[in-house]
Amino acid sequence: MVHVGIVGDGYTAAELLRLMANHPGIEVCYISAHHNIGRRLDAVFPQFTGIYDLTFEPTDAGRIIETCEAAFLALPHGASVPLVQELNAAGVKCIDLGADFRLKDAAVYEKYYGLPHGAPEMLADAVYGLPELYREKIKTAPYVANPGCYPTASILPLAPLLKKHLVEPAGIVIDAKSGVTGAGRSAKEANIFCEVNDSFKAYGVGNHRHMPEIAQELSFAAGEKAELIFTPHLVPMSRGILSTIYAMRTSGTAPEALRAALEEAYAGEQFVEVLPEGVFPQTKWVSGTNRVHIGLWADPESPRVILLSAIDNLTKGASGQALQNFNLMFGFEENTALKAVGLMP
Amino acid sequence: MVHVGIVGDGYTAAELLRLMANHPGIEVCYISAHHNIGRRLDAVFPQFTGIYDLTFEPTDAGRIIETCEAAFLALPHGASVPLVQELNAAGVKCIDLGADFRLKDAAVYEKYYGLPHGAPEMLADAVYGLPELYREKIKTAPYVANPGCYPTASILPLAPLLKKHLVEPAGIVIDAKSGVTGAGRSAKEANIFCEVNDSFKAYGVGNHRHMPEIAQELSFAAGEKAELIFTPHLVPMSRGILSTIYAMRTSGTAPEALRAALEEAYAGEQFVEVLPEGVFPQTKWVSGTNRVHIGLWADPESPRVILLSAIDNLTKGASGQALQNFNLMFGFEENTALKAVGLMP
Amino acid sequence: MVHVGIVGDGYTAAELLRLMANHPGIEVCYISAHHNIGRRLDAVFPQFTGIYDLTFEPTDAGRIIETCEAAFLALPHGASVPLVQELNAAGVKCIDLGADFRLKDAAVYEKYYGLPHGAPEMLADAVYGLPELYREKIKTAPYVANPGCYPTASILPLAPLLKKHLVEPAGIVIDAKSGVTGAGRSAKEANIFCEVNDSFKAYGVGNHRHMPEIAQELSFAAGEKAELIFTPHLVPMSRGILSTIYAMRTSGTAPEALRAALEEAYAGEQFVEVLPEGVFPQTKWVSGTNRVHIGLWADPESPRVILLSAIDNLTKGASGQALQNFNLMFGFEENTALKAVGLMP
Amino acid sequence: MVHVGIVGDGYTAAELLRLMANHPGIEVCYISAHHNIGRRLDAVFPQFTGIYDLTFEPTDAGRIIETCEAAFLALPHGASVPLVQELNAAGVKCIDLGADFRLKDAAVYEKYYGLPHGAPEMLADAVYGLPELYREKIKTAPYVANPGCYPTASILPLAPLLKKHLVEPAGIVIDAKSGVTGAGRSAKEANIFCEVNDSFKAYGVGNHRHMPEIAQELSFAAGEKAELIFTPHLVPMSRGILSTIYAMRTSGTAPEALRAALEEAYAGEQFVEVLPEGVFPQTKWVSGTNRVHIGLWADPESPRVILLSAIDNLTKGASGQALQNFNLMFGFEENTALKAVGLMP
Repeated sequence: MVHVGIVGDGYTAAELLRLMANHPGIEVCYISAHHNIGRRLDAVFPQFTGIYDLTFEPTDAGRIIETCEAAFLALPHGASVPLVQELNAAGVKCIDLGADFRLKDAAVYEKYYGLPHGAPEMLADAVYGLPELYREKIKTAPYVANPGCYPTASILPLAPLLKKHLVEPAGIVIDAKSGVTGAGRSAKEANIFCEVNDSFKAYGVGNHRHMPEIAQELSFAAGEKAELIFTPHLVPMSRGILSTIYAMRTSGTAPEALRAALEEAYAGEQFVEVLPEGVFPQTKWVSGTNRVHIGLWADPESPRVILLSAIDNLTKGASGQALQNFNLMFGFEENTALKAVGLMP
Repeated sequence: MVHVGIVGDGYTAAELLRLMANHPGIEVCYISAHHNIGRRLDAVFPQFTGIYDLTFEPTDAGRIIETCEAAFLALPHGASVPLVQELNAAGVKCIDLGADFRLKDAAVYEKYYGLPHGAPEMLADAVYGLPELYREKIKTAPYVANPGCYPTASILPLAPLLKKHLVEPAGIVIDAKSGVTGAGRSAKEANIFCEVNDSFKAYGVGNHRHMPEIAQELSFAAGEKAELIFTPHLVPMSRGILSTIYAMRTSGTAPEALRAALEEAYAGEQFVEVLPEGVFPQTKWVSGTNRVHIGLWADPESPRVILLSAIDNLTKGASGQALQNFNLMFGFEENTALKAVGLMP
Repeated sequence: MVHVGIVGDGYTAAELLRLMANHPGIEVCYISAHHNIGRRLDAVFPQFTGIYDLTFEPTDAGRIIETCEAAFLALPHGASVPLVQELNAAGVKCIDLGADFRLKDAAVYEKYYGLPHGAPEMLADAVYGLPELYREKIKTAPYVANPGCYPTASILPLAPLLKKHLVEPAGIVIDAKSGVTGAGRSAKEANIFCEVNDSFKAYGVGNHRHMPEIAQELSFAAGEKAELIFTPHLVPMSRGILSTIYAMRTSGTAPEALRAALEEAYAGEQFVEVLPEGVFPQTKWVSGTNRVHIGLWADPESPRVILLSAIDNLTKGASGQALQNFNLMFGFEENTALKAVGLMP
Repeated sequence: MVHVGIVGDGYTAAELLRLMANHPGIEVCYISAHHNIGRRLDAVFPQFTGIYDLTFEPTDAGRIIETCEAAFLALPHGASVPLVQELNAAGVKCIDLGADFRLKDAAVYEKYYGLPHGAPEMLADAVYGLPELYREKIKTAPYVANPGCYPTASILPLAPLLKKHLVEPAGIVIDAKSGVTGAGRSAKEANIFCEVNDSFKAYGVGNHRHMPEIAQELSFAAGEKAELIFTPHLVPMSRGILSTIYAMRTSGTAPEALRAALEEAYAGEQFVEVLPEGVFPQTKWVSGTNRVHIGLWADPESPRVILLSAIDNLTKGASGQALQNFNLMFGFEENTALKAVGLMP
């Protein structure tokens, strides 16, 4: 039994707790919050009535060290760095669901997140927690940078094609659409029901924080600098990301080679499905799961390629992937507590 | 041309402006706000881009008196009383969309709204702005108490039946369901998209503020004290109220008499439709309109009666009715700028 | 390992398969359909891609008998009777998700379902598959009548209070609201997205088929004939039922006695939670789960009582309860594959 | 008073009737249908209860000629050609909301619509009913091909930039998102509420029928062949299209030149708003209106340009634009019955 602490009281924390309730090797010992200190978990999230007997505490590294072997951090950017340092020093492994350890370049971090990085020397060693790409490194990492939701949905379809030089690393367009949980539980006017319901819009046009994260990983995959534009949109739904990706086949690559490369790359991956020819993903099919569905259309008459991927932003895009990382770090079967089928309809 | 001011920057203010944009006899001269002072209307509500050239000012009775003949007040309870007094004294007619002048009994007001009424002596003269019941009084009133949304949906189906003693005034159950605009535009956690979407709940169980308002008007209709329970619910939709009302036929009343009474009562009312036998209302049919749809089911085998009514809570339940009152007060055709058909689908 | 067959290809069949995918003691050997014969399950329901390797067959009792020890029937009314007879005769236990065995009175069945019952002699022995009321009988039953979704949500809050004569068995009003999965997957104009979205309506006013089923079980609980009116409504959401129930305390019963009775009745029930004073259920809290949340408001100043209950209509209201019954019938832990926490948000 | 007939009983027909109810110069004399013959309009669309006294007739050119000066055709492709010929011959002007007269090249029509065009000789003279581009031609046309919804949203932002050679005519990516009314009122499984709600997907990937229509008009604007890829998506909302368009500035074009060109092109257009820098459209802002909102982002560091446009697919994307065309053809003010403000929220 691994004793686990969760720092945060937003939707990703709730999603961690939802999944962990059915993990036979986890005991949640500690939850902490900024605003809900002293409130019972089931008062803040009544879906846990009768399931957990937990109360939000103030965030306190000492308490975590005392009670936990693993900590999941769901904090605003900037806040994870000192906590990971202190917890790691005491032997507590950390899965950071925030952005602090995702980017390798501290200057890029500062540009997009608006503050200098607190420990740039840690970035080189930080493991990017996308198991399909970095499984072996994750197993022994003391701390893991859990990927962003949009990056997860964008990198997985493209990486195998870039690695094999089947699509051009430049001129990529990623038009992504997310459910509203991506904006968290904070009460902003823009997120209230009547501002979102039955409507659709883009946001972060031209400058979203996930763009450099995607570019970094696609560049690693391609072995050269990837160039892309990324536009997120808000869908009137709670969960799910659909990413529509436009790329160009490299000269000399047959359309069939793309599907073959994706199928080969993900043949052994239990969470990634390459859908059959002509089938394109729908977010509900993976709702509440750690799964990724990928569809592919390659124009036979032009080099245009369209990749479509669907994930649940809270699960594979955040807490499910965090638990997948935890399972790797602590020697559990990788799919422990992650075997759910999409809640459709 | 009547010069009009609007005090408030929430959804009911936006709905007033939406309707007034097509009113040939209104010029909106003044809008005021608490939080959005100094911001252009089309920055706060971009649907007005290219339509109005207005900026939110601080609320100032002097400015209203100087520029307007009519004021629409969409304010928190308690705030309308001194403003109506000052504006009326200067000859500005007021339509109050808040609760301050709806209840006749200051003690009931204090019990449900948690503060003493600021001018109990005004309550007796206040006209309840439900034109189908009080049309003649509205025409000459210096200030009108625009009814609540739930009361509008609940009183209209019941009043004609109570007036003719066709249903019992006791034991009435009103189970009402509202879209989320009823909660206004304020950013509370309970109103954010992900807390409401794809879900359903009751609220204000046993003690909602609209209960005494409904009881007051039903008692007036019945000529004796009406007794009822009222439970509001939140529907994951933006607009609309459906009210499901359970009552009992009085002894000796034939089921057919109920429909006949409703049809007779509303034969001359252009905003109220009694739907045919077997047809029951759906909120979308009246979305964006000032209309009321009423359905009736009378059990031939028992005294049970079910009335169903649908309105748009922002239009007939608030701003449309306010404009209907304005039209009466200023001598316009009652349906001016209120002739829209339901935005369905 | 129990070999299981599923007859039906609608949402309840998909929900059974979703839950069974994580049941360690079930192997699904057979699925049959009317319209989708010959199509792979993952073509009909792509959420099962990579999870099941199954194809819809024609419905054939012989094939079921040959391959299965248990059959789940999700069929239109009338169709289950001969199949249950044949399967039972061959030793295959049946859980019938349809209506054929729920009512004890064949005349009531004929009145509400429009056809004579095919085997009225089976009705007396049929076990009503509500484990919280009939657990022991279910364990040994050869066939179980899985309750309707509305009845499940309506009976559980009322039965303990009626049994103890704490509320009156007459004059009950059940105003229920359901997500659209309740209407199944058939393509009718009334169920298309644009007819339902952002709207709200009642249906089946005065004569819904679940009314006699509720009345039957409430009468059993009360030990005398229960009298009620039941009105279902359609909520623009996929899953969930909220039932708002109005009843009257019996003379001499203290308000506190109601809560005590509910808590006592459900103290040992892992799927039923009586929410704390002042907390009322929301359907999302139990989404995708087999749980029931019950809220209670008892007016201290009048005999009025309001009970609110929330379930997921596809899970506790259909397939989850069916699996709960299966677990009892085949000696598994009652909550096997039913431990999920609500998918909120 | 112009006597008008409407052929069709789907959502675009209902939207025409919604708008025409407030057109002072139109009398609707005739509505015809395929499935709903003999049913009253308010039985098929209850939002018209008390507004129109019309019954669906069989489609009969003779009846239209006898009673109408103008006909609106909302028919499946292929069906409009003979009807327009017959009506035009008798002097009835036609606005065709279908696809039969939109494409200039009969071979392209046959490729995308799967049948030979019935009157290829008519295509050259057919006027494409996008008033912002073809106003003068529309005024005198005997029949007008009302544009598709996606083309309207895609052409308006791009045409002025292509005309001035400010963006490249090749390599354009149009990622469009539509509400479900775009799929019409027909009852297909894919359109039922539970298949769409709280989910998101692409459809018609690589081969949607609106792609050649967009390419045709962009090529006319550019004066050379435009090359693009177009992917439509389905948003869980009823109305609205948001089009996200990726293009490249031409060499030597300053980012500021793009905005200036758009503002100049639409300075005199009452239905088109170029939103301020940093403001991007949301579909609700134009819901129920004939308006188009356009946003622009031009990367200063690369040639990338993003254009975002929002329309209501049923109004500016279909019936509102059809009425705009009618107003031009019959000498009414262009905005008659089209002055509504967006129904937001």
